[in-house]
Amino acid sequence: MILLRRQLGDVLRAQRMARGMTLREVSAGAMVSLGYISEIERGQKEASSELLASLCSALDVPLSAVLREVSYAVALEEGAVPAPTPIPVSQPTGRPVVASAA
Amino acid sequence: MILLRRQLGDVLRAQRMARGMTLREVSAGAMVSLGYISEIERGQKEASSELLASLCSALDVPLSAVLREVSYAVALEEGAVPAPTPIPVSQPTGRPVVASAA
Repeated sequence: MILLRRQLGDVLRAQRMARGMTLREVSAGAMVSLGYISEIERGQKEASSELLASLCSALDVPLSAVLREVSYAVALEEGAVPAPTPIPVSQPTGRPVVASAA
Repeated sequence: MILLRRQLGDVLRAQRMARGMTLREVSAGAMVSLGYISEIERGQKEASSELLASLCSALDVPLSAVLREVSYAVALEEGAVPAPTPIPVSQPTGRPVVASAA
């Protein structure tokens, strides 16, 4: 069973990390206890709609953007979209690609 | 403040209507009380992740599709995307468009 709170927690943590913010900073900005935010990020607690709005505000990210990312992550887990293929870092010959100095 | 549960409720109701299902049918399929589903659809109660998964299963709609629709509805409310313009049903002259019989 794919659980929204797990995917939501992952996305919220990724958004926080991308901004270089600590749990303490988000906690102060959203006026929510640090422990509670940590549990939400780990997918252990459900975030109420009001709390989610506060977290998005503290992270300065639109709720729609968070939901779009969560939707994509859920679709990946459902197998609805193929996982992105890693970009090869070397040529088929096995030789590493070297940037031209020209 | 844009609340997830209101947008989610709207999308869940629209999905149910689109399938011509009654609250009773979804209630039986998801094994959740009819009153609770009704409150969720009206945005009055938060749906836990487990309940949301059950509702999606009863409606036979992927969770990712529901979240994508919710994300779009939230973006509209945020003003992040322009509202769709209604398609005109008549020519600029005011004459209705008639399909050619040729």
